[in-house]
Amino acid sequence: MEHATFPPLPLVVICGGTHGNEMSGVYIVREMQKQKVEKAGSVSITTVLSNPRAVEACKRYIDTDLNRCFTDALLSGPITDSAPYELRRAHELNAQFGPKGSEEAVDLLCDLHNTTANMGLSLICYSLDWITLHIYKYIQSKVTSVPVRLIQLTIPISEAYSLESVAKHGFSIEVGPQPGGVLRADIFNIMKEALDLTLEWLQKFNSGSTFEGGEVEAYTLVGNVDYPRDPMTGEITAVVHPQLQDNDFKLLQPGDPTFLLFSGKTVKHEGEELYPFFVNECAYYEKKVAFQLARKITLTFPSISVKLDR
Amino acid sequence: MEHATFPPLPLVVICGGTHGNEMSGVYIVREMQKQKVEKAGSVSITTVLSNPRAVEACKRYIDTDLNRCFTDALLSGPITDSAPYELRRAHELNAQFGPKGSEEAVDLLCDLHNTTANMGLSLICYSLDWITLHIYKYIQSKVTSVPVRLIQLTIPISEAYSLESVAKHGFSIEVGPQPGGVLRADIFNIMKEALDLTLEWLQKFNSGSTFEGGEVEAYTLVGNVDYPRDPMTGEITAVVHPQLQDNDFKLLQPGDPTFLLFSGKTVKHEGEELYPFFVNECAYYEKKVAFQLARKITLTFPSISVKLDR
Repeated sequence: MEHATFPPLPLVVICGGTHGNEMSGVYIVREMQKQKVEKAGSVSITTVLSNPRAVEACKRYIDTDLNRCFTDALLSGPITDSAPYELRRAHELNAQFGPKGSEEAVDLLCDLHNTTANMGLSLICYSLDWITLHIYKYIQSKVTSVPVRLIQLTIPISEAYSLESVAKHGFSIEVGPQPGGVLRADIFNIMKEALDLTLEWLQKFNSGSTFEGGEVEAYTLVGNVDYPRDPMTGEITAVVHPQLQDNDFKLLQPGDPTFLLFSGKTVKHEGEELYPFFVNECAYYEKKVAFQLARKITLTFPSISVKLDR
Repeated sequence: MEHATFPPLPLVVICGGTHGNEMSGVYIVREMQKQKVEKAGSVSITTVLSNPRAVEACKRYIDTDLNRCFTDALLSGPITDSAPYELRRAHELNAQFGPKGSEEAVDLLCDLHNTTANMGLSLICYSLDWITLHIYKYIQSKVTSVPVRLIQLTIPISEAYSLESVAKHGFSIEVGPQPGGVLRADIFNIMKEALDLTLEWLQKFNSGSTFEGGEVEAYTLVGNVDYPRDPMTGEITAVVHPQLQDNDFKLLQPGDPTFLLFSGKTVKHEGEELYPFFVNECAYYEKKVAFQLARKITLTFPSISVKLDR
């Protein structure tokens, strides 16, 4: 692969509280705001609590999941005072940090999330973005306390529904396990480390460093598995099997147990060998997702450096 | 100590969802209701979702914490349609299973709770109740998968604020760690085992078995420790220290770290050696409790059997 150059990345936005009960991001943003962190070398930093009303209520959202509101369709629709709070907020955030897909959009948006699943540190991104791959590789090479993984959502950017999609480049930093409404020191420190490394990489990039090309493993979403449910009431009739619980990213083979029914029976995985993640994530019960399944792929990327003659 | 006899204990109430987002009890009760479990030998079982509206919303409570509504003062006050939902519900539950302190109260009430703290299996009870101590000893002798502990709240029964206090005998079964809104198989199974052993003990007791006296260790609440907070905003300025997190019931000695301030400094425990519990429980942020502290005591109790000539 040939060498690639990109314009400098001076404008960075760090968002916490996109889900109001995911506490690491809320407190990282609050602390940066208290300490008036607005610069890291060449990088200008804007910090935002994306969903202040949900943060205040310590809930994921007030009316609807903010982090599903950033599709082109939702952002281009009309907005009225009676629209769901989060949709109105999505329009505000898009106006402030986008507009999505435009030249005016900020250079990079980093959105901070927690999960109740035992996922360690994951970066989640859309499509193939060499900037994100390089940042991921940088973080992975430095963080030793937990597994660091990359999850790629292969949907067109127009249908990309999450906040980071309004920026030119962006990703979510997802760290778990942490219960909703709880702040754990270990999880906080991992997220802070990932964020500091992101800012460090951006400064090096902007200063003219060349980053070697290479390859990374990534997990690409294949599908969702719902809990077994009562067809009449919709209530779950099973719990994630103890052998799957906490085993995010451990290869699930045909015949491996996935659910323990309240009746005592075991449900087993059928079909392809795949990697489960977001296993028993609190917020996904209502989305009818007990866990997601991914295929492991290898992504190759070129060496990059800044294009200084922008 | 001499031998003691008690009247039979035929009427048992099992409550889940007193806190609507503590899922083990919600699903144990729902499953018992689906399977129409109304008897266990000589024991007549009533199952209840204590706070159905909070269960529906998957929140701890709607207006106020139901499990703080059962003091004599709150139960004897007037109730209007504009009273908080949980206070109205407390009056209903007291009428149904109490009245608290009366001859008509049910024999035993077992209330099912979860915590985000790493507490294993705990029984929580008020004052010295030999029935509860014997059930505790029975559960402790049979459960091997997690530590089993007894927490005693030494406040007068008139000021006892939680649901089980409406019955002649009662306790909470508290199992963790489990995030709010999440159902884990391991935690579910531990709670189910404790409940099954309680019912087994009651049947043996009612059938005339004699239970040997002895002694057990218990933890008696000494006080609460709040998070360090900003005096202006009330916001927390620290997180539970990694050396304290998940170490419920590990003796806290003077000089041991308790909090990690966002500034990077460490706060240390001062004063008496005590045992921390409910460390970083989600629902206690708003109650201004980062963890509770207990002293370890030894409780002695006599052999007991049923008084058959009631």
